[in-house]
Amino acid sequence: MHSRKTDRRGFLKGGAALAGLAAGSGRIASGQTQGAPAKKIDELIAYGERSRFVTSIRVPVAERHSPDEFGLTFHVLTPLQDSVGIITPSSLFYTATHRGAFVPDIDPREHRLMIHGMVDRPLIFTMDELKRLPYVSRVHFIECLGNRAKPTHKTVQETHGLTSCAEWTGVPLSLLLKEAGVQKEASWIVAEGAEEVKGASSIPLAKAMDDCLVCYGMNGEPIRPQQGFPLRLMVPGFEGIYQIKYLRRIKVVDRYYMTYDDYGHINPDPKVAALTHQIGPKSVITYPSGGQQLAGPGFYEITGLAWSGAGTIRSVEVSTDGGQSWKDTELRSPAFPMAHTRFGFHWKWDGKPCVLLSRCTDDLGTIQPTRADVAKYWNVPLDDKLRIRGADNTVQPWKVTSDGSVQNGLS
Amino acid sequence: MHSRKTDRRGFLKGGAALAGLAAGSGRIASGQTQGAPAKKIDELIAYGERSRFVTSIRVPVAERHSPDEFGLTFHVLTPLQDSVGIITPSSLFYTATHRGAFVPDIDPREHRLMIHGMVDRPLIFTMDELKRLPYVSRVHFIECLGNRAKPTHKTVQETHGLTSCAEWTGVPLSLLLKEAGVQKEASWIVAEGAEEVKGASSIPLAKAMDDCLVCYGMNGEPIRPQQGFPLRLMVPGFEGIYQIKYLRRIKVVDRYYMTYDDYGHINPDPKVAALTHQIGPKSVITYPSGGQQLAGPGFYEITGLAWSGAGTIRSVEVSTDGGQSWKDTELRSPAFPMAHTRFGFHWKWDGKPCVLLSRCTDDLGTIQPTRADVAKYWNVPLDDKLRIRGADNTVQPWKVTSDGSVQNGLS
Repeated sequence: MHSRKTDRRGFLKGGAALAGLAAGSGRIASGQTQGAPAKKIDELIAYGERSRFVTSIRVPVAERHSPDEFGLTFHVLTPLQDSVGIITPSSLFYTATHRGAFVPDIDPREHRLMIHGMVDRPLIFTMDELKRLPYVSRVHFIECLGNRAKPTHKTVQETHGLTSCAEWTGVPLSLLLKEAGVQKEASWIVAEGAEEVKGASSIPLAKAMDDCLVCYGMNGEPIRPQQGFPLRLMVPGFEGIYQIKYLRRIKVVDRYYMTYDDYGHINPDPKVAALTHQIGPKSVITYPSGGQQLAGPGFYEITGLAWSGAGTIRSVEVSTDGGQSWKDTELRSPAFPMAHTRFGFHWKWDGKPCVLLSRCTDDLGTIQPTRADVAKYWNVPLDDKLRIRGADNTVQPWKVTSDGSVQNGLS
Repeated sequence: MHSRKTDRRGFLKGGAALAGLAAGSGRIASGQTQGAPAKKIDELIAYGERSRFVTSIRVPVAERHSPDEFGLTFHVLTPLQDSVGIITPSSLFYTATHRGAFVPDIDPREHRLMIHGMVDRPLIFTMDELKRLPYVSRVHFIECLGNRAKPTHKTVQETHGLTSCAEWTGVPLSLLLKEAGVQKEASWIVAEGAEEVKGASSIPLAKAMDDCLVCYGMNGEPIRPQQGFPLRLMVPGFEGIYQIKYLRRIKVVDRYYMTYDDYGHINPDPKVAALTHQIGPKSVITYPSGGQQLAGPGFYEITGLAWSGAGTIRSVEVSTDGGQSWKDTELRSPAFPMAHTRFGFHWKWDGKPCVLLSRCTDDLGTIQPTRADVAKYWNVPLDDKLRIRGADNTVQPWKVTSDGSVQNGLS
């Protein structure tokens, strides 16, 4: 008879042999969706993946149609209802383009960035040359100007999912412009991407010299194709359309130039036309939010995101009584300039119907408006169908009913 | 004849039709590796992916063998040579386990965390219950104590790839312990994971009450299976083995308990045995690093990461002459406590052979040692084969040869 020790060794060796066999066959069952092909262990070593129990996905904007006819609509919403912290996973980062889902398939070895126009020394950079320059890593949000809640929207993904936040790495644009030598008469830049219909925007030179970044990194890796691989202009706090993807050209000019990207900015009302460029201050409760379900009376953590194109979030308040009273929340993350900031508020729900709101204040002291504020400002009636003109950064209401279900308070 | 306008419309509609056809077939070519099956557009909407030109992957530790015989070695190294910023993409986050590649396939609805032992009120939490509690998001590194450079290592992935950094979201452990009511005589906790061979570590109660987090979020999404889905204990600044994956049990006790995880800590030399728990201060140049190639004399950006288990990185210096002189670098990212911090130094290479070094200082004033410092401290000869006992946080040299190739300076 074997000793106990020998038995145990024999068993363990048997186990190791079986494990080896599994490796030899190149497949493991763990972490795989049933029915889906098992990943080779070599693949799981090379590049990890999320749990099969995590199924959060982006969804397209339902009512959005491409204003041109070149391709497919590709406005894709981040699942904010599942978000934690302030980093949006790159695979779930929102994307919005009017150029279809056919993102440019750019070989970075072939990609160039040209800086020209009103400069003393026009420059062309390869990606390798850009990476040999000083860079910084900063956390910034991006938001599409079209990110606005409608009464028909059911979830926070639909009301606010056209914003995301990432760690961006790149070369300060000011460094490149100084190297090129901006001429005295210059006052604007036009930045252009390498898309079929070229994304291009006019950006004030003062902004370009302030905090813009020519980014090649996002969340610790090269920018993803849907976010502009291999190069994207980051214009912190400005609306998404300025964050030019597939950046290939920056022309220094002496006036604002109309571009394709102005389709959304052209407005006969000069007041409305002025409401562009800079985002927020804006906040939204991501939990509890539309479509979610409270388990019953008791303690809950109200949480959400706040951001401002003007700077840092100073404070966020919530109301659990439809705006009659407001309470300070805690910031649960660092508060970076022009970045999502996570807030939290520990709340005891008494089981009665109520309306949850959040509003933020940025470090300029600007307070996020309500729809009533906007109606008063525009001198129009406040009703359910009030369409906010320009950028809509109004307070989002979520109705909690007595059965714990949560609905869009605009509907 | 058609008018020009009609022609254009016709052309555009044709384009749209073709695009629609491609969508109908459910496949797009863009961004796909040649020969690999094309992704359905629905999949690319749901969950984005990286460019086919980005091929950075993790690799297993070559010489590492599992000390038990239960399964496959699964020590997988982060490609630090390709890193930018301070966030490690979750798919490239290092992982180290002695329990094989068969990571637990945990249904979060079934998972529980028990807090018991020397407490007034033993508690059991579901995942949903934990998520109803106040939480924070913080950036912290993790590093395996085995993360040490050897002369045989060729790249920074091999010398230092057992460390990564992420944004972690979770409930402060102190909140859970206070809720349970820690008894006066308690002085340690033992934390245990739900693995076949249970990961478990004894952690001082003072650390548990200070800054430990019970984490369910990582880089904005649920923790990945290889990192401990659905729950991981974060013990900021302590070596990786304390960051218990698949956390299921915390027992409050009145003394240190030996556990499976102590296999690496048992050492007959009391001085060596004391060198555990806390990591760093440590830094490494990730570019230029072993295996990389400089294009010729000219400007380069020396960049790398610094971290300390004791707190925040205060400064990082580099030497381009093998340690004869040191220059201050710039911090290119926020410097968080117990987090990777990115440094950069703009360097003009004259084309001559040289040795590049980095050393950091944390906010306690502790300076990263050289191997010569350690040899002096231990009173042993400094030679190429010097094996640093305990945690190795010594300065890493990279040799640049006149042809621009970079090699491990230890070899």
